[in-house]
Amino acid sequence: MPIASSLARALVAAAAFVLSLGAFAQTDPLPSWNDGPAKKAIVDFVNATTTQGNPGFVAPEERIATFDQDGTLWVEQPIYAQLVYCLDRVPALVKAKPELAKVEPFKTVMSGNREAIAKLPMQDLEKLVAATLTGMSVEDFRAEVKKWLSASRDPRWKRPYTDLTYQPMQELLKYLRASGYKTYIVTGGGQDFVRVYAEQTYGIPPEQVVGSAGATKFGYDKSGRPVLTKVPKLLLDDDHAGKPEGIHLMIGRRPYAAVGNSIGDQQMLEYTKAGEGLRLAMIVLHDDAKREYAYGPAHGLPNSRVGTFTQALYDEAGKGGWIVISMKDDWKRIFAFEP
Amino acid sequence: MPIASSLARALVAAAAFVLSLGAFAQTDPLPSWNDGPAKKAIVDFVNATTTQGNPGFVAPEERIATFDQDGTLWVEQPIYAQLVYCLDRVPALVKAKPELAKVEPFKTVMSGNREAIAKLPMQDLEKLVAATLTGMSVEDFRAEVKKWLSASRDPRWKRPYTDLTYQPMQELLKYLRASGYKTYIVTGGGQDFVRVYAEQTYGIPPEQVVGSAGATKFGYDKSGRPVLTKVPKLLLDDDHAGKPEGIHLMIGRRPYAAVGNSIGDQQMLEYTKAGEGLRLAMIVLHDDAKREYAYGPAHGLPNSRVGTFTQALYDEAGKGGWIVISMKDDWKRIFAFEP
Repeated sequence: MPIASSLARALVAAAAFVLSLGAFAQTDPLPSWNDGPAKKAIVDFVNATTTQGNPGFVAPEERIATFDQDGTLWVEQPIYAQLVYCLDRVPALVKAKPELAKVEPFKTVMSGNREAIAKLPMQDLEKLVAATLTGMSVEDFRAEVKKWLSASRDPRWKRPYTDLTYQPMQELLKYLRASGYKTYIVTGGGQDFVRVYAEQTYGIPPEQVVGSAGATKFGYDKSGRPVLTKVPKLLLDDDHAGKPEGIHLMIGRRPYAAVGNSIGDQQMLEYTKAGEGLRLAMIVLHDDAKREYAYGPAHGLPNSRVGTFTQALYDEAGKGGWIVISMKDDWKRIFAFEP
Repeated sequence: MPIASSLARALVAAAAFVLSLGAFAQTDPLPSWNDGPAKKAIVDFVNATTTQGNPGFVAPEERIATFDQDGTLWVEQPIYAQLVYCLDRVPALVKAKPELAKVEPFKTVMSGNREAIAKLPMQDLEKLVAATLTGMSVEDFRAEVKKWLSASRDPRWKRPYTDLTYQPMQELLKYLRASGYKTYIVTGGGQDFVRVYAEQTYGIPPEQVVGSAGATKFGYDKSGRPVLTKVPKLLLDDDHAGKPEGIHLMIGRRPYAAVGNSIGDQQMLEYTKAGEGLRLAMIVLHDDAKREYAYGPAHGLPNSRVGTFTQALYDEAGKGGWIVISMKDDWKRIFAFEP
């Protein structure tokens, strides 16, 4: 071994030792979590799966953690951000194709009648999604979403949607990554949509975002340049059973930890817990009407389109050994922008 | 900053400095490559894209390199390893379902008549693939492939297929990774098949293998345990235009470097080169009948099922600024097992 290399090795070893001392003295990795069963479950899981010799130890390359997005990493009420994007895109669409103004669901969206918009049937929403999310190159789509994200504000806090991520979850993502876990988003939302902001917002790169995915079509533009165009063909419906299926397609390994908040996450949590060894499954219970929203068991919100947390899911958590995260009790602080 | 932490930082900085000195003195990262235009193109590309201040500099998170597998990372002649696997699975299949013995293509495969097997039409091969690669859990499939890989030997070198990887490509993969690139396989072969051995064979984890992918179906076994079953439905035909489409689906970023060897790689190479900044596109020319095989322009092999390198592709390389890797001239050594 060359001298430079062995000197460097000795220095690295010394640094690692000092860092490990530092880790002992280090501050709480989850400062926005109250002490309680949820926080304890997380810390115990991380300690067990990352301590060599522990029966729960997991090899670094196997450390996969998957997170639902809407309602798990950020606010999903009163309406999913991506659906707001689709609605906001309609005027430009109608301007480009004026004949759409007379056709449903574009007519209703253009009317601005919120009650009527909220009542649009699912097939109309699908038409809306197809019309606003496809027919352009992947680069043009990315640029449009970026522009929208920087300009739009949510109706309650009047902040960019990307500010509405839960601080405790940001800490959990960082804690898991610092413990050698690869963190993934596994969302029913659009894969291309979430990829636009996931890296900056969560530190999760595009290749670690699994979501409902439409197809693209490879071709050439007028100048002969290769281009990928988004087309209205669904490749992966990444919700319910589609979540474990999407995890297999995109990751090819079973997660050791999974976090969700609605019936669309049930199969992902079941699949995660069914693996050998120690696995962590968690669901966020929105029971904090004051600081965020309260819905799910013993609550209720008018908009039934948004993440459903049923009593049956709550019962499932008890049977399956999933940890319920109570927003009200387990989270000291909800958002980074709040003191 | 706590004292332990700042001391550690100083040590890490010192170690990094000493390591960078070591890098200057380090041995050739590509010892199995002869000096020549291909090796020079690689080293120049890596230096430019990883040197801060260089106009070609690429941010670490954007460093994506994609490699075709069959004929690019390992031998594809005289027949793809995965097709051998499918053929080898037929007797077990017929034993489980004796009625198949009278049905094509199983009848021909069971006859052992190599000439007749080689002439099976594409739709028969598809039937064979569907029958041998689906209908079991993802775990059972993985176990079957593992067993087969350790037992089977290629017809020429009498070695496990996983020994038939090209040593120069192994060095290129390592060199790129050491330079901050994430290396991916993007193969027309089966994603689940390649994932079984890619980590051990190439240091490429399952989540970085993009391939032709069948669907899975989430369900529960008799004991109520969640299970993913492989089903005969193609989700991604990862060849030709399917390669850039698959890259967008699975990675969501355009590669900076791509390597292939056949017409099935053309669109991936075009898509890679069409990106802004410095991009590297390379194709392997099999022109070494003695040490491996010679096929492609001015050559010819009887089995037309295997990776096609046409004169048109060769011309495309010239026009597109792709680097042609001549196996004969550019590679000092082909396999790790050869001296």
